[in-house]
Formats: sequence, C-alpha cells, structure tokens
Amino acid sequence: MSRIVDTSSSPHAKLDSVPLSDVTVDDGFWAPKVKVNRRRSLPHQWSECVRTGRIDNFRVAAGRKAGEITKHLAPDSDVAKWIEAAAYDLNAEPESPVAAELDEVIGLIAAAQDRCGYLDTSFQLQPERWWTNLDHGHELYCGGHLIQAAVACRRATGDDRLLGVVRRWADYVGGIFGPGGRPGTGGHPEVEMALVELYRETGDRSYLELCSFFVEERGNTPPVLNGSPYLQDHLPIREQITPTGHAVRQLYLCSGVTDLYAETGDTSLLAAMEKMWESFTTRRMYVTGGAGARYEGEAFGVDYELPNRTAYSESCAAIASAQWNWRMLLVTGDARYADAMERALYNTVLASVSLDGRTYFYTNPLEHDGGDALAGNRGSNRRTSKHWDHVPCCPPNVARTIASVGGLVYGRTDSALYVHLYVGSSARVETGGTAVEVTQKTDYPWDGRVEVTVSPEKKARFALMLRIPGWARSARVKVNGRKAGARPVPGSYLKIARTWAPGDRVVLDMPMPVERLVSHPRVSSNAGCAALQRGPIVYCIESADHGRADLFGLALPEKADPEAEFRPRLLGGVVVVTAGGFSRPAVPGLFAVRKKAGGRSKKVKLTAVPYFAWANRRPGAMRVWVPTA
Amino acid sequence: MSRIVDTSSSPHAKLDSVPLSDVTVDDGFWAPKVKVNRRRSLPHQWSECVRTGRIDNFRVAAGRKAGEITKHLAPDSDVAKWIEAAAYDLNAEPESPVAAELDEVIGLIAAAQDRCGYLDTSFQLQPERWWTNLDHGHELYCGGHLIQAAVACRRATGDDRLLGVVRRWADYVGGIFGPGGRPGTGGHPEVEMALVELYRETGDRSYLELCSFFVEERGNTPPVLNGSPYLQDHLPIREQITPTGHAVRQLYLCSGVTDLYAETGDTSLLAAMEKMWESFTTRRMYVTGGAGARYEGEAFGVDYELPNRTAYSESCAAIASAQWNWRMLLVTGDARYADAMERALYNTVLASVSLDGRTYFYTNPLEHDGGDALAGNRGSNRRTSKHWDHVPCCPPNVARTIASVGGLVYGRTDSALYVHLYVGSSARVETGGTAVEVTQKTDYPWDGRVEVTVSPEKKARFALMLRIPGWARSARVKVNGRKAGARPVPGSYLKIARTWAPGDRVVLDMPMPVERLVSHPRVSSNAGCAALQRGPIVYCIESADHGRADLFGLALPEKADPEAEFRPRLLGGVVVVTAGGFSRPAVPGLFAVRKKAGGRSKKVKLTAVPYFAWANRRPGAMRVWVPTA
Repeated sequence: MSRIVDTSSSPHAKLDSVPLSDVTVDDGFWAPKVKVNRRRSLPHQWSECVRTGRIDNFRVAAGRKAGEITKHLAPDSDVAKWIEAAAYDLNAEPESPVAAELDEVIGLIAAAQDRCGYLDTSFQLQPERWWTNLDHGHELYCGGHLIQAAVACRRATGDDRLLGVVRRWADYVGGIFGPGGRPGTGGHPEVEMALVELYRETGDRSYLELCSFFVEERGNTPPVLNGSPYLQDHLPIREQITPTGHAVRQLYLCSGVTDLYAETGDTSLLAAMEKMWESFTTRRMYVTGGAGARYEGEAFGVDYELPNRTAYSESCAAIASAQWNWRMLLVTGDARYADAMERALYNTVLASVSLDGRTYFYTNPLEHDGGDALAGNRGSNRRTSKHWDHVPCCPPNVARTIASVGGLVYGRTDSALYVHLYVGSSARVETGGTAVEVTQKTDYPWDGRVEVTVSPEKKARFALMLRIPGWARSARVKVNGRKAGARPVPGSYLKIARTWAPGDRVVLDMPMPVERLVSHPRVSSNAGCAALQRGPIVYCIESADHGRADLFGLALPEKADPEAEFRPRLLGGVVVVTAGGFSRPAVPGLFAVRKKAGGRSKKVKLTAVPYFAWANRRPGAMRVWVPTA
Repeated sequence: MSRIVDTSSSPHAKLDSVPLSDVTVDDGFWAPKVKVNRRRSLPHQWSECVRTGRIDNFRVAAGRKAGEITKHLAPDSDVAKWIEAAAYDLNAEPESPVAAELDEVIGLIAAAQDRCGYLDTSFQLQPERWWTNLDHGHELYCGGHLIQAAVACRRATGDDRLLGVVRRWADYVGGIFGPGGRPGTGGHPEVEMALVELYRETGDRSYLELCSFFVEERGNTPPVLNGSPYLQDHLPIREQITPTGHAVRQLYLCSGVTDLYAETGDTSLLAAMEKMWESFTTRRMYVTGGAGARYEGEAFGVDYELPNRTAYSESCAAIASAQWNWRMLLVTGDARYADAMERALYNTVLASVSLDGRTYFYTNPLEHDGGDALAGNRGSNRRTSKHWDHVPCCPPNVARTIASVGGLVYGRTDSALYVHLYVGSSARVETGGTAVEVTQKTDYPWDGRVEVTVSPEKKARFALMLRIPGWARSARVKVNGRKAGARPVPGSYLKIARTWAPGDRVVLDMPMPVERLVSHPRVSSNAGCAALQRGPIVYCIESADHGRADLFGLALPEKADPEAEFRPRLLGGVVVVTAGGFSRPAVPGLFAVRKKAGGRSKKVKLTAVPYFAWANRRPGAMRVWVPTA
C-alpha cells in the first residue's frame, strides 16, 4: 500500500491518498517519463553510486571491505533517495531492472549500522565526531532519507529489513535528543517528515514526539543552530511565516511541520504554514514553480527578488515545493495547493532532467545567454551527470518524484473521490462504501479535455471532486452527456455528488488558450516582459528555433496572437506556441540614447517550447520572460 | 608638487598631470564637497580609526603600548588611505583640521616598522606568519597603500619620513620576492601602482622592476595564487582581456599595469589594457560607472549580467575604475577614458558618501525596494558608518578621491594645455614655454556653458585641448567671441592651437538635453526600461518625491518630454528632471494573465534626482532604470 504520504489514519488531514500500487499511469506524457526513469535513470544512478564509492562506503563501514570512506556531502542520502525511487517504481512495474541492486544495498546498509543504532557512513568509524556538527553534518538528514526509503520499501513489497534498521536508528536518536536528552535539531530538515511517516507506519508515537521536539527546538534561547536564518533557526516555528534562507531546507521543514499538524491538529502550526505559503507564492516563487533566487546560500531572496538569469531555483527546491504542496493539499483539501504542486512538477521538476533521463540540472535559470558555464555563467544550459562527483542531491530526488507521480493523481475520503492531476490512468479507489474503478483518458497537459469514467463495483453515492485549475477559466463539465449542476470555479474542486453507477462517464472540457502573463511590477526583472503559459505549461523561447537571430533582440508585441500546435516529433512530442514577433534593432554599445537606437524592427516568427524541455537540442540562449517592445 | 599619478618623466605617457597644489577649485559643486571632506569626513574617519584600534595597532606593534593587535582585515590600509587623503587635502588648504593627527600617525608607523623592514600590524608580532598567505593576507596590499600615502605626503609637504619607511619596506620586499627570491604576487593588487610611483618619486629602478615581477607572476605555471580567476591569476597578464573575478582587485591590477606601461612602453601590456577596457565598458559596466555585478566574490558577472537590484557595484570598484581611466587617459590622451572616469566619479563614487560626509555605501545598487537591510535586502538604502567595525575600505578611499579631484581637472604637455573636467577653478600650468594661468567659470555639471580664460605670462603658441564629452553632441566654441576653427566632436579633445595672449577667453557651450538611455538588449534586467541622463549625471526616481505612489508602479512613457530645473535648496542644490509619467495598474498576485491586469493607468508627474544624491532623505525605494510602459 505504497502511499506517497500516508494520511489514511491522520486525524487532521482532510484527504487520504491512493496507493501507487492501485494506480496505473498509461498516458502519453507521464508514462514514457516513468519508463525512462525506470530503464535509464535508475540503472544509471545506481552505477554512479557505485562508481563514486557511495555503495562501498557501506561495505567499509560494515567492515566488509578495507579502505577508507569516500568523502562526499551526505552520501547516504543519495543512496536512500535512490532506494525510495526504486521502491516506488516497483509498484508500477514489479520487474525492476534494479531489483538485485535494491536487495543488495538494503543488506549492506543493515550490516553497516552500529550496534547502538548509529548509522551514517560519513562519520561511522569516528564516533568522536558523531553529532558534533548539527548545522552542516547532515546526520539527521541522512537518517531521515533512510526512513523514507525504508517506509517506501515496506509499503511497496512488505520488505521490512530496512524498516528495522531505521527503527533502531530512530530509537537510538530518540535516546540522545529530546526532553530528557540533549537539545538540537537537524541543520537540514528532512528527518521531521520522515519521523511522522515512521510513526504512521509503525504506530509508535515516540517518533511523532521526536519530530515535534525537533520542530520546536527551532528559534529557542539559547539557539541550537546559532539562530541562523539560513538554517531556519532565527525564530520559533510559529513565527516563521516568510520563506527564508536555504530554499530546500525551508521547504523540507514546511513539509515536516505540515505532516506534524496532520497528526496533532495544532492549528497554530497550520496557520504559520498558510502564511508561509502565501508569502512564498505571492512574493518569492518563480513562474516556473522554482524557489530560491540567490546563488549565495542557495537561498530565498527578499520579496519580489526573482532574477531570471541568475535564478538559483534548485531542482530539489522545486521538488520540495511539490512535496509541501502535496501535504498542504492532503491536510486542507484546498485546490490552490494542487495548482502550486502542478506548477512545480510540470515546469521546474521536469526541466531538471534531460529527455533521455541521464543528465540533470542542479539550478534552473529562467534565462540563459547561451554561453557555457566555463564562461562564468551561473546557471548552465547543459545538463550533466557530473553532479555525482560532488553533490548529486537532485538526480535521485527527481527520480523518486517521477516514480511517485501515479500516487499524486487521485485522492479520497470516505465520501469522495478526488482527481488532483489530469493524467491518462486507471485506479482503484475505495469510497462511498465500495471499490470504484476510475479511469482518465486525456492528452493533458497538451489538451484540456478529460474523460473520466467512474465504475463503482456497485451503485454508490459519493462525490467526484474534479480539480479546476486556476488557469481554467471556462471549464465545462458533462455527466453522461448532460450538463452537471455546479459551475466549475477556477482554483477549486468541482463537486459532483450523486449516486454513481458502473460506466458513468464525465467529460471535463478545459479550453487551453495561450496566456500571456505579466508580473507584479515589483518583480523588476520582468518589467516590460511577458511569459507564455498554456494550461499548466510555462513556455520559453530558445535559440534552436530562431536560426541566427539574437534571442535577446526578439520581442513579443502586445498584439501578437499566439497559436498552439502539437508537434509529435519535437522533444518527445510537445505543443509549441508560435506568435508573430519582431527582432528589435541593435543598440550600439552598452547604453545608447533612445533616438540613436534606431534602425528598423524586423518581423520574426517566434516559436516557444515548454520550459521543461529546454536545453535538449543544440546549446543556446533561452528566455521565459520575453520583452514586449 | 602633488600630482595625482606623476607621469611628468614617464617616457610612454602622452600627458602630464597638473599638481594639486597648482589648482584651486572654487565652484559650486566640488568645492563644497572637498570642504565637507576636509571638515567632516577626515576628522570623523580619524576618530573611527582610533576607536576601532587601527591607530593603537601601530603603538602595540611598536611596543609602545601593551595589549593585543585588534583584528581587522588589512587595517593598515585604511589608515594609509586616510593619510593619503589628508595629504592631498593639505594642497588645497594648508590649515588642516587633522594636521596634528597626520604628524602623529606617521611617527607611529615609523616606530612600528620591524628592523628588517617588514611592516604590517596584522602580522607584525608573529614573524612565522609573514608572507604565508599571499592570496588573502593583504600584506603587499597594505604596503602598497603605505607607499601611496608616503608619496602623497612627500609631494604635499616635502615630509619624507614616511617615504623612508616605505623605501625600507620596498627594499626588504624586493629582497624576498623577485627573480633571485621567492615567487609570488599580491592577492589584492595595489602594490603594483604604488611601486611605479615610488620609482617615479625616488628614481630607484628596482621598484619598477619589482612591480614588473609582480605583474608577470600572474598566470604562471605553477601558479602563485592557485590560478584563481577571482585573484586574476588564471591567465598571463597579456591574455587577461576580460574583467574577471573580484572587481576591485581587477581594476587595481589594471591601474598598476597601465602605470608599468607608462614607464616601460611594453605595447603588449597596453594592448591587453585596451581590450580589457573595451570589454569592461561595452559589456560589464553599469550606467552609473559601477563595476561588479555579483555579491558572491564582489565580482564581475558575465557579459551583460548587470542586475539592478542585486548590483554589488562596490564604491571601491568605481574608485578603481576612475583611477584606471585616469591612467589610461595619461598614457593615451584619449578622451574616452575621461568620459568613463567622469561617469564613475559623478555617479557611483559620489553616491557612496552622504551629503554630510559621514556615512557611506559599500555597495551601490541601481534599484532598491525600500525595505531595510535587516529584511534581507542585499544593497542597503541607508548609508552607515558601521563599516569601520568590519571592512571600511570604501570611506577613506572616497575621501582620498574627493581630496584629489583638483588634480584631475587639467593636463599638460610641452605644447598643450588640457581641460579634462569642467570644474570652476583656476590653475597654473606650464606649457608653450611659459606659465599659463587658466580659469574656468561654469555651473557644470548642471549647465554645459564653460568660460575658460587663458592667460600666459607672455604671448605663447600652444594648443588648448578642450574635452568634448561623448554626450555633448551639439557643442559650440568661441574664442574671444569668434567661432573657433575646428568642429567639436563628441568623445574627443577639441584642439585650439594658436598664439595665446593674456586674457584670451574661450566659451564652450554644450547644450544639456535630458537624454533617455536604453540598454543593449542582452542586458535583460533593463528590458523595457529607460534611464535618464543629463550631461554626466545619471538620474533616478525615489519614493521621497512621489508621495504614496508605489515607485515600482511608475512608468516613463516614450513620449514623455522631460524637463530640467535647478532646485537650489534640494539635496545641496541639484538639477532635477521632471516628466509626465503614469502609474500602472496593479497586478493581482505575483503573475497574472495580461487581460486581467487591467485597471486604469493614472497620470503621475515623475521627478528624478541625481543618482549620486539618492538616499539622503527619508528611506524609500529607488530606481535608475524605469519601465517605459
């Protein structure tokens, strides 16, 4: 029963999720990506883990191999995320190409664990260094990832070897930290959400209490992490209402706090999270769903500081946003969180991996000048697999996210069936006192028409909750060919409550015009520019589609009338947007007096491709925000 | 004979400068600033040096006081720059308010010097640490500043006590480094230009050779500074043709290399400097003359990476640009360097100090959202004097620059008298075989009319070279009421060669329309925006002039017809620019579909003030680049 966050017994969650194993994704968009993830990414990531010593580290720690631990930053977490990804993938396709590796590594991890319960290969053989650097040592972070991996394995296959390991670890950690033990919390949040899931999986409340302890330690006097805003230790958790410091840390922390709320119902925590989310999405989030404006500290900037070229927008931060939004959706049932999750998933998260599944972006700028990183550019326009030699936090994070997507499509309560994401798929969901077979047929995200078939085993009364995305301003819905009662409201769930019979057919039609977005004027980096979006997909223009034109000379006039067109052979099959644009006259030098800027504008046909698919052709320049004059 | 860079005997310099002591500045613009610098800044900076232990450090190092050296980064350099500033100031006004302090500190420095010649209070008492950290130890940097201070003292008053100290230091350093000694060069360039001046002042060629050695060490194999681009050690000096790494380091290095060329005539050095300058001014310089786009590393970004809000643009980097451009002007006689120097001086350098001369900006953003630094903003909109507790490199650097301005106004050769800057002043200049009294009457930079009176002691033939700034596209000139022969060409010197008689009067009239600048399209941070410039002054809009309007909602339409108006009581007396603008409708949320952005534009009168004068009223928002729609 591999749920992606299991709120099925959480007293303060509005929604339950549907186990990955009960969902089959068979569409033209995600299914191929899940397949590439399985066949290419997972084996490649394993071999990189082996090549870079991350697997041998467990052998050395276990005394099964001579030599030294290979030094990396939090190497065990990379392996743990890979295990989690492989475990999710088993739900969709039991014939895993990495089944033997998965089995082997679990054994190695178990062997590496210290008798006391300690487990972290970076420090394993030097007990004097244990817990000496909570700020940057990543021990609780690695342990958290191992818990998530263990829970995923247990839920996927019932294999609870790793769960035993992490219970021993968590019991040991609970004996060190906590009310009776030493103060402290993890410099990189992660263990919080892991401990809540461990509690859910085992029923052992001490894990939830340990999570609560770690959350409440923040902002204490004396401080446990130097009071650092970078590490979210600057304020007590309920006063942290603005995304601050390291973006991944911030959003992982939010995920853990939201999980904690789901179990405890402490509304002051939820209130803080709601304010944090408001601040994030209305002042500090990229249109691509990316988070973290600054390279320095991989951190959030101030309000409206959203530079395009030097955007940090780490892949892991977009994943973290998706994770947090998923949890906010589960606890509140509010569609705005699904909108934000979709924005992160379909744009930045997917952009971070190449179409062939082997190379990755660590940062995701919204503009690139076309030069390579050696030229001193901050974000690269070439994905790479070299992260494995340094900090490959993103690749296995992307892998586990893609492998989990089937688990994000549907939701349930005892009286409602939720469709969160529009993905061609079928699923078995228990609601209204019966098992319901639900299927979607759709070409989403390229087309807004979705056919949902609802087949309860027996006639049953429940509500079908269809998400109406915020962009879908003229959605229409029919049930068995007849107009449904309620009016679809963008940014909410459309409730269709009725007695459902096998084969009932719902057609949701969401026209997908190309939309031209403008920014709040305080986002000065987007002044005079527009971005194109169609459905959930944010577009960009790339050099590859514009011959020899300087991409920075191109403009999209106010009156351009963009058109959408599906190109099956382009970039794995995508809808491109074309529009009548123009090439602006050159400016002599760096600055010039307006009247001298002269020369004539030339008409140019602009072709925009989905942002997530950029940098899969010849390297060049790219822009999401395009000048309008 | 206090020249600001003495090229009077340099075989490969085209121009000689005119000693500060031969120039009297008596205008309404600079003279008050020089006075504030003398009466407010110099005493205040001295007391800060005392308060923060920088003066006591010399006492402790000399064994005259018990206690420990107060730790700062390169603290001796701050004192040295202050000495240089105080020495320059003596040329203009012998009754210095800090004469006693100047005398005292020179004695302290002499007492602190080690018998071997070593001198740097940070390491003085720990000989085992001497020269162990060339990258970041700043020993050569501090020594270089002491040399410049010593040369300035000698030139100002003939006091050569400090010159003796720095000669002993330089002789000692020359025995350690060099062809027969150890490899290495300074991580922070500065000693290079200092050593050339020491050579000029003493005639001892070994100082020039040591400078050459330090310059040629860069980019060697094996590297002396880890091959670091940040430290300009990534390439041999002749291959360094793009501004790279730490902006102040880069531009100080350029100054030293240019000085070296002036003496050696190695044209390969000049060629590299010319390419470097082209790259700097056409791709990596702010319209305010600022340098250094990035906070991380206080460094240059890539081409066209010139963000406004997160601009680093350190005050010292603009000063460094002015210094380098001054040297390029001296060696080439090319007016474009005077243009660039003027841009840096009249905009970023002056912006870095408050009108009252006591508080400073370290960074000079081109846009500010109005929040304070505690909110996490990068650049502040409040100047401060707190730098003294950390790294106060900028305040005394600004002080020595302002104190030196009289020395930048005029130039000479044996057959020509140059007017580089238009500043109400009088000077005595030797040319055409006679002494010439030259005066300027002008309200520059507020007005482009300049009356130059040329009074040779006896009739003499020489050329008057009047700089026609790049912005002056319709300049006219009359000599004794008659049109002069040659046509003024923007960005060049207008040569008026004739036999001059006492009282000859030249009137240069440069109309100063308000100009609307646009950026090269690759400067995407300025897309859809214009900047206002009038004469050499770059303007900005500030909250203080716009009531409750959100500064980020204001726009300057293409058809606005800006007007200029002198306001004697505003900000010490400045020309403001007003224009009919409008307030754009708000955008709901962070991004919105264009058609929804609706609402009505409202007419607003825009008032722009000189950038250099921003942040002298109530703290608020500021923008140099203003949206046009």
